[in-house]
Amino acid sequence: MMSIREEIIKQAKKAKSASRQMANISTEKKNKALYKVADGLLEKTDEILAANKKDMEKAKSENLSKAFLDRLSLDENRIKGIAVGLKEVAKLTDPIGDILEMKRRPNGLQIGKMRVPLGVIGIIYEARPNVTVDAASLCLKSGNSVILRGGSSAFNTNKKLAEIISENLQKAGLPGGAVQLIQTTDREAVKELLTLNDYLDLLIPRGGAGLINRVLNESKIPVIQTGVGNCHIFVDESADLKMAAKIIENAKTSRPAVCNAAESLLVHENIAEDFIPKVAKVLSKHHVEIRGDKTAVKIENSIKEAEESDWSQEYLDYIISLKVVNNLEEVINHINKYGTKHSEAIITENYTNSQKFLSQVDAAAVYVNASTRFTDGNQFGLGAEIGISTQKMHARGPMGLNELTSTKYVIYGQGQRRE
Amino acid sequence: MMSIREEIIKQAKKAKSASRQMANISTEKKNKALYKVADGLLEKTDEILAANKKDMEKAKSENLSKAFLDRLSLDENRIKGIAVGLKEVAKLTDPIGDILEMKRRPNGLQIGKMRVPLGVIGIIYEARPNVTVDAASLCLKSGNSVILRGGSSAFNTNKKLAEIISENLQKAGLPGGAVQLIQTTDREAVKELLTLNDYLDLLIPRGGAGLINRVLNESKIPVIQTGVGNCHIFVDESADLKMAAKIIENAKTSRPAVCNAAESLLVHENIAEDFIPKVAKVLSKHHVEIRGDKTAVKIENSIKEAEESDWSQEYLDYIISLKVVNNLEEVINHINKYGTKHSEAIITENYTNSQKFLSQVDAAAVYVNASTRFTDGNQFGLGAEIGISTQKMHARGPMGLNELTSTKYVIYGQGQRRE
Repeated sequence: MMSIREEIIKQAKKAKSASRQMANISTEKKNKALYKVADGLLEKTDEILAANKKDMEKAKSENLSKAFLDRLSLDENRIKGIAVGLKEVAKLTDPIGDILEMKRRPNGLQIGKMRVPLGVIGIIYEARPNVTVDAASLCLKSGNSVILRGGSSAFNTNKKLAEIISENLQKAGLPGGAVQLIQTTDREAVKELLTLNDYLDLLIPRGGAGLINRVLNESKIPVIQTGVGNCHIFVDESADLKMAAKIIENAKTSRPAVCNAAESLLVHENIAEDFIPKVAKVLSKHHVEIRGDKTAVKIENSIKEAEESDWSQEYLDYIISLKVVNNLEEVINHINKYGTKHSEAIITENYTNSQKFLSQVDAAAVYVNASTRFTDGNQFGLGAEIGISTQKMHARGPMGLNELTSTKYVIYGQGQRRE
Repeated sequence: MMSIREEIIKQAKKAKSASRQMANISTEKKNKALYKVADGLLEKTDEILAANKKDMEKAKSENLSKAFLDRLSLDENRIKGIAVGLKEVAKLTDPIGDILEMKRRPNGLQIGKMRVPLGVIGIIYEARPNVTVDAASLCLKSGNSVILRGGSSAFNTNKKLAEIISENLQKAGLPGGAVQLIQTTDREAVKELLTLNDYLDLLIPRGGAGLINRVLNESKIPVIQTGVGNCHIFVDESADLKMAAKIIENAKTSRPAVCNAAESLLVHENIAEDFIPKVAKVLSKHHVEIRGDKTAVKIENSIKEAEESDWSQEYLDYIISLKVVNNLEEVINHINKYGTKHSEAIITENYTNSQKFLSQVDAAAVYVNASTRFTDGNQFGLGAEIGISTQKMHARGPMGLNELTSTKYVIYGQGQRRE
């Protein structure tokens, strides 16, 4: 029997070899394969649901939370939704082979940058099994191979999904090894995966801060950090306070468990007495707990006093922190200190402050007068996303197909030599 | 006394704080500072030459090679050249603050990507002291801070140069901490530098494979691999053989010690008997040693027989390997196996082969009918370069000012909330 390391190296070699083929497969062929996978999933709905039932039973026996079970469970409609998603990826423009910035140099050389796939991408994610299909489809469309490591709770479901994907890729003439799931729930497998810098070109951890930090510390492969969002909304003294309250209500309560939800409010001292009771009233309708600094507590007695640790919390829940601030400098310093460089917003009618906030707050997405909830590949017009990068190298913000590519310089000469 | 680690953390903190200021300094002010540094270097030519003399004496006493001494030594003209280089960087277009791909979404949000500096960049390099100034100038122009770790042989020269840079930045109203040299030649310092992922955003090792591998293995900071070039030239059966010989002469002999010089020839079997004696004759004028496979040796008896290790050698010398190949598939497989993903060329008149080579050879720069020696920031029209990336993430090929930046999404709203 092979060891976990041997098994994983075998998969990585297969992925690498598949990636060489994938790089040169036409868009038409890739799209047909995506449609075939979609149809394959629909045809085998019963098998997927049976596998998912096993995972659900195990999760229930372990008393996992209702929210967790909801993310894990599939039904016929969700599978239909996944199939629709695949067809939507098929409709996206294929970036591979595009040549950017082609120019002629004084010596006659024509030089451009051709978009090429990255190669082999590893994705480590948690419970939701739809990620298995979403991630695979984006990697395939951009000409990459992918090695998937899903959460152990979804293992049976993911295994079935990966099997159907691989089988239908082969039917469509693509290499089956282009999509592979790690075939064990042993945590050892992640450790091994992180060392495969000879085979993997990129690792994307999708999950909580714990997972991301582990990957960052142990990986020799380039990593893109995604997802952790301690997002702030600053209400300036010149803000339209009605607009501010509505944006905050949306950013906090429309989907509190996602990374682009607001986690902290900063309110200018000159409007604090007027605005805080208003926003507290709006948020109380959604049973949001507010944790504020001393000034905020004095103004509105329904507010609990915050601790220092609240300023760096990503609650992912119906909780928000609130701080009264003296000026924009304090806001910028506070966000750059406590934020996670995800999404940050200012609500203001002051032109200078809006410009200063946009240029000096260090984050993947900075907003004037809009909800942070828009930080998303679809909302930004990328068509789909594989995650939201909170780092500066390679890609920042929502990552679509382009962010799964590299470029190479292509040079057309007529015998040029360098002097 | 502070430990090496404490010293380096102190420098890193200073660099981080300087980077926050640098990100918001106008182009005009940055350009004036670059001119001031240029003038400062010219004024203090005597001091620089005195420091360089110390390094040269030490290097001579250690019997270092003539080529090494040449790279290390400065004279009045070289210092003038460095000053001119600074003024050229001042003339380059500043990428910071540009907003790319601004578009209006159906809900009225205006979304664009603003170019921003990376933050703090670490550069580890070997002997040539001009890199100290070149690298600093590109980092400054792109709004970054930089921590420099030069080769120990150039320590006195680098220290003097860094001191003059920092002093003149301050005169121009920029933070002096934006350019700092590690103040020890202790190798321990590099080890410490590699762990500073809380302060440094990017590390660029510039040097041989040994340095690069060490940095890749030990660093927790994102790294851009640069420079190692085992570059191939394939002479197809349809090639214009005169053009091929001239390109090879240029690519091998115009500057053999640089990374874009050719290190290996692949010759199609159908023209091998005709072409190999011709190219051997041209290369023999420059005393180039050819190491060939059995077929090549049979054709031309001045060729020595190559060993397996020759196919992966970056000679950086008047040596080249030569292999006779059956077809383009063999060429593509050979290059993708033995190459370092730097620069690769095909000499051909066959349209299909040229296209296939460009799309299937995996390298930072792929050429048809031109010398690999053109892989260079100036030659590609970037104005200057900080290195040539041979990796796929973030930047590939010659890296200019744009490659020292990240982006952030800026979003102008009018009260939008997400449904």
